[in-house]
Amino acid sequence: LRAKACNVVTYEFENIPTSALDIIEEHAPIRPNRRALATSQDRLDEKHFLEGLGLTVAPYANVENLQELEDAVAAVGTPSILKTRRMGYDGKGQIRLKGGEQLADIWAQMDGAACVLEGFVEFAHEVSVIGARGADGQVSCYDPGENVHVGGILDTTTVPAKLSTSQRMDAVIMAGKILNALDYIGVLGVELFVTPNGLLVNEIAPRVHNSGHWTQNGCVIDQFEQHIRAVTGWPLGDGARHADAVMENLIGGDMDRVPELAADPNVALHLYGKAEAKPGRKMGHINRISPKS
Amino acid sequence: LRAKACNVVTYEFENIPTSALDIIEEHAPIRPNRRALATSQDRLDEKHFLEGLGLTVAPYANVENLQELEDAVAAVGTPSILKTRRMGYDGKGQIRLKGGEQLADIWAQMDGAACVLEGFVEFAHEVSVIGARGADGQVSCYDPGENVHVGGILDTTTVPAKLSTSQRMDAVIMAGKILNALDYIGVLGVELFVTPNGLLVNEIAPRVHNSGHWTQNGCVIDQFEQHIRAVTGWPLGDGARHADAVMENLIGGDMDRVPELAADPNVALHLYGKAEAKPGRKMGHINRISPKS
Repeated sequence: LRAKACNVVTYEFENIPTSALDIIEEHAPIRPNRRALATSQDRLDEKHFLEGLGLTVAPYANVENLQELEDAVAAVGTPSILKTRRMGYDGKGQIRLKGGEQLADIWAQMDGAACVLEGFVEFAHEVSVIGARGADGQVSCYDPGENVHVGGILDTTTVPAKLSTSQRMDAVIMAGKILNALDYIGVLGVELFVTPNGLLVNEIAPRVHNSGHWTQNGCVIDQFEQHIRAVTGWPLGDGARHADAVMENLIGGDMDRVPELAADPNVALHLYGKAEAKPGRKMGHINRISPKS
Repeated sequence: LRAKACNVVTYEFENIPTSALDIIEEHAPIRPNRRALATSQDRLDEKHFLEGLGLTVAPYANVENLQELEDAVAAVGTPSILKTRRMGYDGKGQIRLKGGEQLADIWAQMDGAACVLEGFVEFAHEVSVIGARGADGQVSCYDPGENVHVGGILDTTTVPAKLSTSQRMDAVIMAGKILNALDYIGVLGVELFVTPNGLLVNEIAPRVHNSGHWTQNGCVIDQFEQHIRAVTGWPLGDGARHADAVMENLIGGDMDRVPELAADPNVALHLYGKAEAKPGRKMGHINRISPKS
């Protein structure tokens, strides 16, 4: 089993040149596969992929120049959000449009990057499904978590999420559909908006996901072990949880709360060992555990 | 907090020369302290210490020569068990006496080592308490586990143990008494026999303990983090468990069961990465988790 692990190449978000990946792939399987990474690295490709599966996404338009931005605002409307197609995370590479902005100024800020304009969606809340698919095609999903963002950064994930039984099933089925379609091996996060018209896919992340950190203290097999099990061809854990959990990110000055949090009997503390606490920097997270409801 | 951690010296069972410890102690606190280690490294000193606290131990006698062995067998009776005072673990350095043995032969096998003869105790089962004491004197104990040994080696620990509420309280109070008396900082294991006449101390182990491995998947703060919290002066976790658990050691050929165990949804697998599986060698353990009863 250990030998098997050594023959597998895995990665998170790295910009490895295609030529290097070609060479690596001659010697070892790359898991998750390159298509999964390519699809999720580009917001436009990702939306096309999801629509191809019959899943719903927010209204959007492709934007590659000022004219297209003006057309996009006319079609999608405001409020809306202009995002670079590639390399954005935690709210970076994004500009919110309320309406009435000078679009030429907005477009100048994107510095020529290809973008998509996404319409705002009226949603009750955001949930995410952390799913895994094994080398044998077995799929296993954790219970969906409910996410609250502050300033574009994930603040808390609460499990169980406010979902009806059928919504919970829908969410897990959507994740399974995505995993299968990508022939994915590993752990993947799917962010969903809960709307009056059903679940809508916000984005997918081809990796362990911040909103899955609660599994470290709520499940027998957490998302990190699950990912390694998947890429090394081990059987997957089943994702059952034995506790309710609230994950809370510790960002920047939240580090001042560590002594108090360390003394809280129901809090498991996970610190990343980063030397300096800067505003907006993820320094760690806590999982607040309570009996399963 | 990190700086604090670096200024503390901790250890498990190492034979560090006294002269070296003297020098170390001039520069940093040694936690757990040297008295705790010295007491628990010597079976006779340990029994004197426990009796001094008013705790009950099995009948025993000091044995330093053949004459004392003959006297001890007369006093303690058989069945009984001759153990070296120092350096024994997992049933090593022990000879069981059924009665009728040639005591000169038995004594020759001990190779001159100072010993104690311990009488067998009629007990229903063995339990252990994993307790911790912080730098501020705070004490926190995990729920006692019930231990089953096979061939002198721990096979399983089951939580909750078969104990009445008052027995459970007694067990935890005894552990607290020991931690306080030793001015102990860190995690310590206390093995207890459950007898018709109450709880009897088998032995103490000044470290994280095999019978506490279930805490890795049954508690928010496991015994390993608890130990580090204690020696670095952090607040202790409270030891509450959110699940029932059965820890099972994987010994030697048990490694053949790993593929099957990895596929069991309620099993968390912990492997030690040892290269070779020898008979009697601890290769890993599993925690089988179920909802809290």
